[in-house]
Amino acid sequence: MTDRTTELVGYPDVAAAAGRIAGIAVRTPLLPCPWADPDRPLWIKAECLQPTGAFKIRGAVNALACLSPEQRERGVVAVSSGNHAQAVAYAAARFGIPALIAIPEGSAPNKVAATEALGAEVVRVPAAEREQAARSLAAERGRTLVHPFDDPRVIAGQGTVGMEIAAQAAEQGVTVDTVLVPVGGGGLISGIAAALDELIPEATVLGVEPEFAADAQQSLRTGTRTAWPVEDTWRTIADALRASSVGELTWRHIQALVDDILAVPEDAIRFAVRVLAFQSHLVVEPGGATAVAGYLAHRAELPPGRTYVAVVSGGNVDADIYLDLLD
Amino acid sequence: MTDRTTELVGYPDVAAAAGRIAGIAVRTPLLPCPWADPDRPLWIKAECLQPTGAFKIRGAVNALACLSPEQRERGVVAVSSGNHAQAVAYAAARFGIPALIAIPEGSAPNKVAATEALGAEVVRVPAAEREQAARSLAAERGRTLVHPFDDPRVIAGQGTVGMEIAAQAAEQGVTVDTVLVPVGGGGLISGIAAALDELIPEATVLGVEPEFAADAQQSLRTGTRTAWPVEDTWRTIADALRASSVGELTWRHIQALVDDILAVPEDAIRFAVRVLAFQSHLVVEPGGATAVAGYLAHRAELPPGRTYVAVVSGGNVDADIYLDLLD
Repeated sequence: MTDRTTELVGYPDVAAAAGRIAGIAVRTPLLPCPWADPDRPLWIKAECLQPTGAFKIRGAVNALACLSPEQRERGVVAVSSGNHAQAVAYAAARFGIPALIAIPEGSAPNKVAATEALGAEVVRVPAAEREQAARSLAAERGRTLVHPFDDPRVIAGQGTVGMEIAAQAAEQGVTVDTVLVPVGGGGLISGIAAALDELIPEATVLGVEPEFAADAQQSLRTGTRTAWPVEDTWRTIADALRASSVGELTWRHIQALVDDILAVPEDAIRFAVRVLAFQSHLVVEPGGATAVAGYLAHRAELPPGRTYVAVVSGGNVDADIYLDLLD
Repeated sequence: MTDRTTELVGYPDVAAAAGRIAGIAVRTPLLPCPWADPDRPLWIKAECLQPTGAFKIRGAVNALACLSPEQRERGVVAVSSGNHAQAVAYAAARFGIPALIAIPEGSAPNKVAATEALGAEVVRVPAAEREQAARSLAAERGRTLVHPFDDPRVIAGQGTVGMEIAAQAAEQGVTVDTVLVPVGGGGLISGIAAALDELIPEATVLGVEPEFAADAQQSLRTGTRTAWPVEDTWRTIADALRASSVGELTWRHIQALVDDILAVPEDAIRFAVRVLAFQSHLVVEPGGATAVAGYLAHRAELPPGRTYVAVVSGGNVDADIYLDLLD
């Protein structure tokens, strides 16, 4: 991967990805939020409405669409806490490519079941060794590893969220000042920042993380990419954002293109899940609600008179956990 | 109103309404449902994502946009179990028009609170006498009554749902064979059928009602517009669909343009609410889930090899009721 990390993903890569994902990923709506602070109008980009329930389908489809015929025949391996797993399984089924998914032990059971239902082979691996396990599996079987975030094709696919935000804002007469994006491994924010750097260069791009997994905030503020132990990051209810660190490639995008990263407590995430349910009528998983949690919890620090967009990144929440969150 | 009922709403009325509601109502997404029967592909038109949480904003905005300056100054009156109330309140606030809303006793408390929060004056009236009460209030104050469904401007506004379904299906390469629409007073299905009669004349339009409020099914199948007592219709959990009968004007549209009306039991509505939450990531009220309930409960009778669209008409569900539905 080192040769790929010498350059950042650029707008042409994102635009090419947009062509590849059309007709498979949904152009999700950019929705107004009448319940938000009138001095800080908020729009949400509802990625929980993707066919697999999360933005990850964009990167997975783009990555698989770029494989050679020989690579397609041999198949792919992915490691993921859930949403990337479903995305790769869905894209692989769509393209007729065999998929083997390594899911860390302790992941949400609904996501495991959904991945199996999509026809992929699933192997459970220890959370702390998941990347090494996936690499070994790929090498053993001669398959291509599709990384959940640290891959330029995946980043370019996720960047189509930023392209759509820019296009939909223009269609709806909205001036986008600040975009809030959940940060796990950093693929989504890297792609969005790459697209917006070309399309709305004056926009501020802010990451949002759970306080229990605020490795990216610490990295950006100290200037050194830092990993947090799985014992720490696994404490957050936002299972989609438990990556121990951002990737080598996403880190370079974040350093170059992201303005700041906010951290939010667990209570703010839970509250955002409820607001999104009863005010915006979206079922959102905790990680997917984290950017809205950042908007709500850090409102006093966000300049008034500006327009905000929060990416609602996914909705694959276990029914029991969801009932507990709404109660 | 008699002079208005001599002609059905036509496509030009709907197209004119589309221009008036642009920028206020949202062009909600037409979403694929990978969880549906592969032999009967299903798409959902997610009207629960409107700023007021239901399609009613379309008809209300169109009706208010058609008022004269003098009528605007005097204000409007609306009678509604909730979603039309919020829609008129929202549109009135947007246009700076005073709004008085008559809400039937026993309506969902979340909808009453939401209407008051939008700045409208609210009066509670007995459910069985709600229409007369609203007419009296309008006459007393010299205000314009905005009927929730039996008004050509309201029907034309709701018809924009059908226009968007046709346009979005074409954009996404989908051939629409059958459209399923919840039926209360019949405004939504009348408008959609009017639009599709021009845009996709070969499409089948099916209404769906709760068995406890199946007055429209009985009317269409017997050829005589029939009213059910409030004591019957008030039993359904689908509070948005408790109208005792369709209107005079909507009845004429339904007779002319609707192919059949299905009825569904309460359990099917509850099940559809859960499916929409955990498979499509939408928070939907019982009435809003009724067309999907029709698709699921009547699947065996629906011809295979055809493509279905179900309108998910609203998401304004009380938190306690929703938790009970998901449990």
